[in-house]
Amino acid sequence: MKSNIHYFFHPKSVAIIGASDKYYSWGNMIAVNLLGSKSQENVYLINPKHDRVLGEKAYGKIAEVPEDIDLAIVIVPAPKVVPTLEECAAKNVKVATIISAGFSETSEGKQLGDDLKRFVEEYQIRLQGPNCAGYYNASVPINASPLPPRFLIESPVAFITQSGFVGNTLSVWGPTRNLTLGKYISVGNEADLTVTDYVEYFGQDPTVQVMLLYIEGIKDGTRFSNVMREVTPKKQVVVWKTSETSAVKRAALSHTAHLVGSQQVFQGLRKQLGIIQVQRLEYGLIASHAFLRHPPLRGNRFAITMVGAGWAIILTDALSTAGFSVPEFSQDLQDEIRRVLPNYRASVKNPVDFGAADTMDFSLMMRIIRKIFESGEIDGFIVANIGEFSSFEDEGGIIEVQIAKSLNRIQKKYQKPIYIFTLMTEADSKSIPLIKKKMNMYHSIDELLEVLKAQLFYYRWKERIK
Amino acid sequence: MKSNIHYFFHPKSVAIIGASDKYYSWGNMIAVNLLGSKSQENVYLINPKHDRVLGEKAYGKIAEVPEDIDLAIVIVPAPKVVPTLEECAAKNVKVATIISAGFSETSEGKQLGDDLKRFVEEYQIRLQGPNCAGYYNASVPINASPLPPRFLIESPVAFITQSGFVGNTLSVWGPTRNLTLGKYISVGNEADLTVTDYVEYFGQDPTVQVMLLYIEGIKDGTRFSNVMREVTPKKQVVVWKTSETSAVKRAALSHTAHLVGSQQVFQGLRKQLGIIQVQRLEYGLIASHAFLRHPPLRGNRFAITMVGAGWAIILTDALSTAGFSVPEFSQDLQDEIRRVLPNYRASVKNPVDFGAADTMDFSLMMRIIRKIFESGEIDGFIVANIGEFSSFEDEGGIIEVQIAKSLNRIQKKYQKPIYIFTLMTEADSKSIPLIKKKMNMYHSIDELLEVLKAQLFYYRWKERIK
Repeated sequence: MKSNIHYFFHPKSVAIIGASDKYYSWGNMIAVNLLGSKSQENVYLINPKHDRVLGEKAYGKIAEVPEDIDLAIVIVPAPKVVPTLEECAAKNVKVATIISAGFSETSEGKQLGDDLKRFVEEYQIRLQGPNCAGYYNASVPINASPLPPRFLIESPVAFITQSGFVGNTLSVWGPTRNLTLGKYISVGNEADLTVTDYVEYFGQDPTVQVMLLYIEGIKDGTRFSNVMREVTPKKQVVVWKTSETSAVKRAALSHTAHLVGSQQVFQGLRKQLGIIQVQRLEYGLIASHAFLRHPPLRGNRFAITMVGAGWAIILTDALSTAGFSVPEFSQDLQDEIRRVLPNYRASVKNPVDFGAADTMDFSLMMRIIRKIFESGEIDGFIVANIGEFSSFEDEGGIIEVQIAKSLNRIQKKYQKPIYIFTLMTEADSKSIPLIKKKMNMYHSIDELLEVLKAQLFYYRWKERIK
Repeated sequence: MKSNIHYFFHPKSVAIIGASDKYYSWGNMIAVNLLGSKSQENVYLINPKHDRVLGEKAYGKIAEVPEDIDLAIVIVPAPKVVPTLEECAAKNVKVATIISAGFSETSEGKQLGDDLKRFVEEYQIRLQGPNCAGYYNASVPINASPLPPRFLIESPVAFITQSGFVGNTLSVWGPTRNLTLGKYISVGNEADLTVTDYVEYFGQDPTVQVMLLYIEGIKDGTRFSNVMREVTPKKQVVVWKTSETSAVKRAALSHTAHLVGSQQVFQGLRKQLGIIQVQRLEYGLIASHAFLRHPPLRGNRFAITMVGAGWAIILTDALSTAGFSVPEFSQDLQDEIRRVLPNYRASVKNPVDFGAADTMDFSLMMRIIRKIFESGEIDGFIVANIGEFSSFEDEGGIIEVQIAKSLNRIQKKYQKPIYIFTLMTEADSKSIPLIKKKMNMYHSIDELLEVLKAQLFYYRWKERIK
């Protein structure tokens, strides 16, 4: 039997209770976006004060709608939410998204929160929220969020978040960087459905490969562990979780504060269950996509090549102080590289500096990368500064797109990851997006390290549970 | 008496020995750039094989040039460098930039390195390099670097680097982000002039306020300390320095490996001399500009405001785990804010969440920021998410530019720093560069933390030496 959660992402009929013409209101943004969604569901607007909303017919109550409703989006003042949900029950509503806020997260709303809890116990309708920012599914598409539709782009990454606003941020920030979220859900205060429920659902959704989670606290610790145990061997779950300083606890007070025991308990669970933890939420999005774009990183030994010794030193420094290894190549491998590189000044020990070789011949670079992969002496490769030359010369950009293509082929052939590092971004050069179509790029040492840590952690955990 | 180094940045006559028509060669790039520099110096091209280079008259030897030469740029094979410099001495050359490589940094070049040392001891000419990537001074301008001139933009930040390539990178990466380098010098292998000499020179240059240094090692530890002691009370010196793992030592082998004793010794010096150390070179450039753009950060207490609780929690988490404080406001201040914010759901304890207040009225935000500054309860302010709304709506961008303007006024009036944090960059929205014209923006938690640490470290150090 399909989980009821399925109705959120594939409803046949939707009612927006509180659809509005008032610009910038939730009832307006969500109605505009749902009407504009390309899916085939029937969308009904409910507004007791107006016959027409957004130029469409509006019903006074959900009871007046001529068909049963799969999904109700509820945007009414908190005291009206439970009575509204009771009306929804009569229309056979399967799932409801409660945007409305003012329940248990405030002292004033405690009674209303209790009423909502009773409703959840009595009725079969499954609830998202309250106090949530909606959701979307880019592959239908259905857009029950405030996000302009241009930000919804299919991808096997799903984002489950206990903060709606960070969902907006990542959804807007991601696409320029090819870091799109195929599915996004703001869980709100979890009066019914929790983070765990959505993890379980996406765990069975074949269109989802990686999940990114923003977690302040977990209500159902044991179920969370059990679900994770099922999901993480098949799919990567990347988590950003709050620490537990007193300042953070105060900031999180308006959200639900049910934590998986102490921070120490979460750390234990994480290692046991293969949950990939990241220090920064945005690096989590980058790491999520890295799992789709690179073969597994099977060990901590790295080779580095670049033009210019400075970045070699910076990268070697960052990697070796973060617990990765930049090992000196064997004498055999050094001799082999030396035969390819014509100039005696090029360092061939690792890192390999092409700058000192007085050459910009990138076919040499590719031959050397192949040789290093074939040696079996390293687990991954970092290529620095591709993307920088396009800023100097249009011609540089053309060559760099070719390099990216070759690196992509080499990564596939040898099934070892190659990471391109460069400070340059989309803002610096028109060729960066072209290069990125071929190979992923990493734009800061900190994000690169977080990606490497995530990949190595997950690979080693999977080896351990085999 | 003016330091001879002055002749690099303000030469009256220049000879490029090894000027070339060969595309992509050093002799070509530097000659093109120097001829294109807008300064008034006379530029002479030297090439024994061609009468004309780049369409200009070329001399066979520097001896044939009809006037004395202040600056010689030397781009000849390593074995010819010392004989060339001896010819320069006869033309009264004051300073020389030696691009040529292949001296002490290679085993094969050891003898040539010794010859160069003897030259330095015998003659008065001061040398930059060898094995350097040139330099520029955007305020003359003189461009003796391979960088296209559009990247040279005046600024009170000078960059002194032991790696030429990272100089290129920062010079290209910076301008899009308003992080320009007014002066840049690649020190090379320091046969004569060292990092310390340039620090001393820029310390007396009124157009330089902040120095950024990339350091692998220091040759003249005692002089370095003495010069720093003079400079750091007046100007901020921001340093990225290598660690000392064996992998880093290997990578740095082709550069000079004279370190200021151990890493521990450097850490001690740094604290004693007020040298601002950063973990990532690029954050160092951001921190350098932060000193120009913000009043001093006098303590570690921060207020945070934003729309949307998620970023409040992320920022509170990052700040409090990094040793900063996000203190709960006094009851008086909370009451005052409550009087301004109309909605009971807005948290007023710190962070202040405008999202929950159901308002996007930014004049309210400004009134609250003023009240918080006036309370004396905090030392700095972080405003999150300005810049994000312009991605949703053009109108959002217009409002955000206004906000940036107001924040700039408030920062000036109360002389306490305000830091705008947002993931969105120039790549996401056309309004971001407009917002940045009013107020600096920080685009990752890691760069923001590095800036805060740099500012607080320097302020506290200066208070201590008073």
